[in-house]
Amino acid sequence: MPDRVSYGLLKGKKGIVFGPFDESSIGWHIALYAHQEGAQIAISNIAAALRFGKPAELAKVCGDAPFIACDASIQDDVDNAIKEAKEKLGSLDFIVHSIGMSPNIRKQKPYEDLNYDWYVKTLEVSGISLHRVISSALKQDALNDGASIVALSYIAAQRNYWTYSDMGDAKALLESIVRSYGPRLSKRGIRVNTVSQSPTYTKAGSGITDFDKMYEFSDLTAPLGNATAEECAEYVMTLLSDLTRKVTMQNLFHDGGYSSMGTTLPIIRLVHEALKNEELVKKAGFDEFLPPDRNLNMGSDSQ
Amino acid sequence: MPDRVSYGLLKGKKGIVFGPFDESSIGWHIALYAHQEGAQIAISNIAAALRFGKPAELAKVCGDAPFIACDASIQDDVDNAIKEAKEKLGSLDFIVHSIGMSPNIRKQKPYEDLNYDWYVKTLEVSGISLHRVISSALKQDALNDGASIVALSYIAAQRNYWTYSDMGDAKALLESIVRSYGPRLSKRGIRVNTVSQSPTYTKAGSGITDFDKMYEFSDLTAPLGNATAEECAEYVMTLLSDLTRKVTMQNLFHDGGYSSMGTTLPIIRLVHEALKNEELVKKAGFDEFLPPDRNLNMGSDSQ
Amino acid sequence: MPDRVSYGLLKGKKGIVFGPFDESSIGWHIALYAHQEGAQIAISNIAAALRFGKPAELAKVCGDAPFIACDASIQDDVDNAIKEAKEKLGSLDFIVHSIGMSPNIRKQKPYEDLNYDWYVKTLEVSGISLHRVISSALKQDALNDGASIVALSYIAAQRNYWTYSDMGDAKALLESIVRSYGPRLSKRGIRVNTVSQSPTYTKAGSGITDFDKMYEFSDLTAPLGNATAEECAEYVMTLLSDLTRKVTMQNLFHDGGYSSMGTTLPIIRLVHEALKNEELVKKAGFDEFLPPDRNLNMGSDSQ
Amino acid sequence: MPDRVSYGLLKGKKGIVFGPFDESSIGWHIALYAHQEGAQIAISNIAAALRFGKPAELAKVCGDAPFIACDASIQDDVDNAIKEAKEKLGSLDFIVHSIGMSPNIRKQKPYEDLNYDWYVKTLEVSGISLHRVISSALKQDALNDGASIVALSYIAAQRNYWTYSDMGDAKALLESIVRSYGPRLSKRGIRVNTVSQSPTYTKAGSGITDFDKMYEFSDLTAPLGNATAEECAEYVMTLLSDLTRKVTMQNLFHDGGYSSMGTTLPIIRLVHEALKNEELVKKAGFDEFLPPDRNLNMGSDSQ
Repeated sequence: MPDRVSYGLLKGKKGIVFGPFDESSIGWHIALYAHQEGAQIAISNIAAALRFGKPAELAKVCGDAPFIACDASIQDDVDNAIKEAKEKLGSLDFIVHSIGMSPNIRKQKPYEDLNYDWYVKTLEVSGISLHRVISSALKQDALNDGASIVALSYIAAQRNYWTYSDMGDAKALLESIVRSYGPRLSKRGIRVNTVSQSPTYTKAGSGITDFDKMYEFSDLTAPLGNATAEECAEYVMTLLSDLTRKVTMQNLFHDGGYSSMGTTLPIIRLVHEALKNEELVKKAGFDEFLPPDRNLNMGSDSQ
Repeated sequence: MPDRVSYGLLKGKKGIVFGPFDESSIGWHIALYAHQEGAQIAISNIAAALRFGKPAELAKVCGDAPFIACDASIQDDVDNAIKEAKEKLGSLDFIVHSIGMSPNIRKQKPYEDLNYDWYVKTLEVSGISLHRVISSALKQDALNDGASIVALSYIAAQRNYWTYSDMGDAKALLESIVRSYGPRLSKRGIRVNTVSQSPTYTKAGSGITDFDKMYEFSDLTAPLGNATAEECAEYVMTLLSDLTRKVTMQNLFHDGGYSSMGTTLPIIRLVHEALKNEELVKKAGFDEFLPPDRNLNMGSDSQ
Repeated sequence: MPDRVSYGLLKGKKGIVFGPFDESSIGWHIALYAHQEGAQIAISNIAAALRFGKPAELAKVCGDAPFIACDASIQDDVDNAIKEAKEKLGSLDFIVHSIGMSPNIRKQKPYEDLNYDWYVKTLEVSGISLHRVISSALKQDALNDGASIVALSYIAAQRNYWTYSDMGDAKALLESIVRSYGPRLSKRGIRVNTVSQSPTYTKAGSGITDFDKMYEFSDLTAPLGNATAEECAEYVMTLLSDLTRKVTMQNLFHDGGYSSMGTTLPIIRLVHEALKNEELVKKAGFDEFLPPDRNLNMGSDSQ
Repeated sequence: MPDRVSYGLLKGKKGIVFGPFDESSIGWHIALYAHQEGAQIAISNIAAALRFGKPAELAKVCGDAPFIACDASIQDDVDNAIKEAKEKLGSLDFIVHSIGMSPNIRKQKPYEDLNYDWYVKTLEVSGISLHRVISSALKQDALNDGASIVALSYIAAQRNYWTYSDMGDAKALLESIVRSYGPRLSKRGIRVNTVSQSPTYTKAGSGITDFDKMYEFSDLTAPLGNATAEECAEYVMTLLSDLTRKVTMQNLFHDGGYSSMGTTLPIIRLVHEALKNEELVKKAGFDEFLPPDRNLNMGSDSQ
């Protein structure tokens, strides 16, 4: 277990974390830290996660937390998960949604040639599932007044990252669902937000072509570097705590400052030098993306 | 025909406008003005529009433009529409997407109790259809270099308007599709944008509960008042013309300044006075939305 | 002293809070809670605050915190304040900037007739002062690695609120300074953010014409209602703590969801009903703001 | 004269363009195209521009347009310029503000060590001048109903570009002034917007350290490449025309899609490869900007 300071921020609170798979999952650390901060939690993922991932192991170190199998894109599963969580924990003070998956990305269908059934599946799993979870919790009266709901997002909801493909659309939908649901939760003081996290080496992330290069670029651009899954979990603790009770319907960037960056001096200098090297330019594949008449200048220094 | 000035902005261009139903449609005026500006156009809507709306009438005044029946949420329809457009007009210089529909709104299912099949239908018709149209046009090589694609959106993609319900999510998805597709079109100089238009009394708009009050509130808040469908069509002309060839992946507010407004002095004063009137407050339904302990002050003037 | 839970979030940290005047000040509560959370603090305001406000009283309840007189728009004052803070506390882990003042607002010069000397004074006091404070702290090596800087802002930086006048510009400048300074602080892990707080009845706020109506309107629009100064202080604790070390260059709305709201049903209904009342309409002053030809409809219900 | 198509978009309109210096100026092309589109214009810049630049030459090809000497940061100059414009042209239908200058950038004062007098000068010349111009025009009744005001901005108002330094703050202020002024102009149907243009090799731009590399990076990131000064002028024609009468208080990106981009595949691949080359990394200066413990990985391909 990491040697972290605990503040008792979630003492007496109960919640469910959707999405922990293994130590690479952001949800893994959120569950763990929530436990350390004093919360009683349940952990949920699809049943197959028990075989391929390690949620059971996580459940054990989180005070023998119940593991609840649930495909959050299927209503019956969601309803059962909420029912079970309520039975085992009582009414919930927080819900964390850390779920995302794109069959189009997994099977490398390019964005301009999407399989639309898979596209809807991407939206269902990564976006609409949040709506299902909240609605089910409301209908089953499984949320306490003043509860906090947090979902994980990514800046591809605002800006284009080619290989993030239809997940960008799913994240935009997810963030919109947060805004659409917000005022429907407020009568009971319930809040809902997304955290837009740096690229993170999770199970979902690793399926993306050139993810390592996206990660690297983001890490070099962000003034404080990419935020880790652990740091994200620390941040989420504040959003589940009573210290943020008037924060709702927000998309909160947790990204080392990346979202407010244009670019940095070292990067534009590096690019400038690298463009002088024809081999590097060819390897980068500019030909494939730029119109034939776009002049790369090959980094010439005269103007 | 309206007495408008024509500049020949689209001389020699060809395009298709999805969505004109009757004179209340934004697409109606876009088609008409595109014709007036010199373009050769095709008009598309679902087949039923011929019976219930007046697209055939529009087609006639647009130089006997072909009407192409198409449900843009069905791939075969989309493929056939693009094929037919190409056969009748040749390759296209512009596509206008002015399509939106929510079964949940039509049938008054509240957002916290969505029918999820209808929700996906909302996303399919109002958002994913744009992806289908673009992809189909690319695959059938039906777009000229430098073409312009414009889709109509609404600020509910960014902010909550209770009764706009799942259409807000659909518009967020639509705007994200624009950003996701953008760089995949740029190698051939094709651009794609959304226009975020003031609330407009269209067929789709009129189905929304209290739409008239949303319209009114927006009209009073926007410094220049709500933009009309006709004014929107004027604006879209600039985006289809060669004057905006470097504008892409943008969401452009055409709303009389509404989007940059907090609020106005007359509105906060009016609200303040109205709050003193218990009957008005009851009629407005604050009880239904605010927590029991929220103090309305009834517009008291002492502090 | 309020009966709040303390978590020890700032144990061992040292910091300075610029701006506490009296209990209405947001900075007042930030200072108090920082003390309660375990920090050792200094308090700063202009010298006159000692006479007209109660910072000395605050200093006493914050563990006899040093009070440092400083006009943050004057470089010598700033330099001396940082010097004194460093001497009395040692290097700082956080700086809170809660300073804002507009002579144009105070003296009721309308925005279209600004006194430009006062305008620059507004920018100096409310925006540039943050730059001065940070630069002075860097030059005097008065910031620890990993320090956190927080400044208070308002949504008038993004949207128009007529009577907030040139303070909107000052807040936009303040938020830009945060983004401009961000990467210059990151090498040492220092972060800098603004909190965009609900309208709050502070000394500065109360000078704004119709502030009470702005407050009321915002309170009714925000799903969770306006955030109080105390709640803001709770939130700021999270930003000064080690739980948010990768959050930088952000503008964080702490506003009960206001910023993500279009409008609410009760408000548009109330406005609609009130518009039927000619006397209310006249009192609200629509005539003064709308063009002569803008039709108010007087809330007619036919369409 | 460029071989461009003219549409008569500004037939009968009168306006003044602040800022043309030589052919590299965006304002140069705006003035020229406005003339070609049928407008009668005046040209303004500081008196010294006549000696060092070529505004007189521009004036000649714009139908012997009057050149009006004016330092837009000085009220008397502004008042005289508006007076003279009105005398020579009559009331104005548009004003274009293409003015920006930072003494701190010119004299290479780094952002963390600003000369504050120069900082205020930057704000005065590049931001507040817009306020002065509008206010003066209003007071002298020099604007026609329905007039259009456009100012040139840059994305550094939203994101950090190290060497753009305090000009980022000035642009943020400029864009805020547009929002603050908007509703004060609307009663007479006057609109005001900023165009956020790609980096452009103007007189002002060329003073920025590593501007060529910023330009290059932006050009490679923007799907349609950087927009040129000529293309910007084409776009501005639409904003001065009657086709955009309901667009106000907006910041409109004219940037080839740059603002909606995260990054591109070729760029992250190029950076990845370049990071393997120690010499390039050193030349880029990462050491100077990143914390000592930040691991660059030197582009290793293992994960």
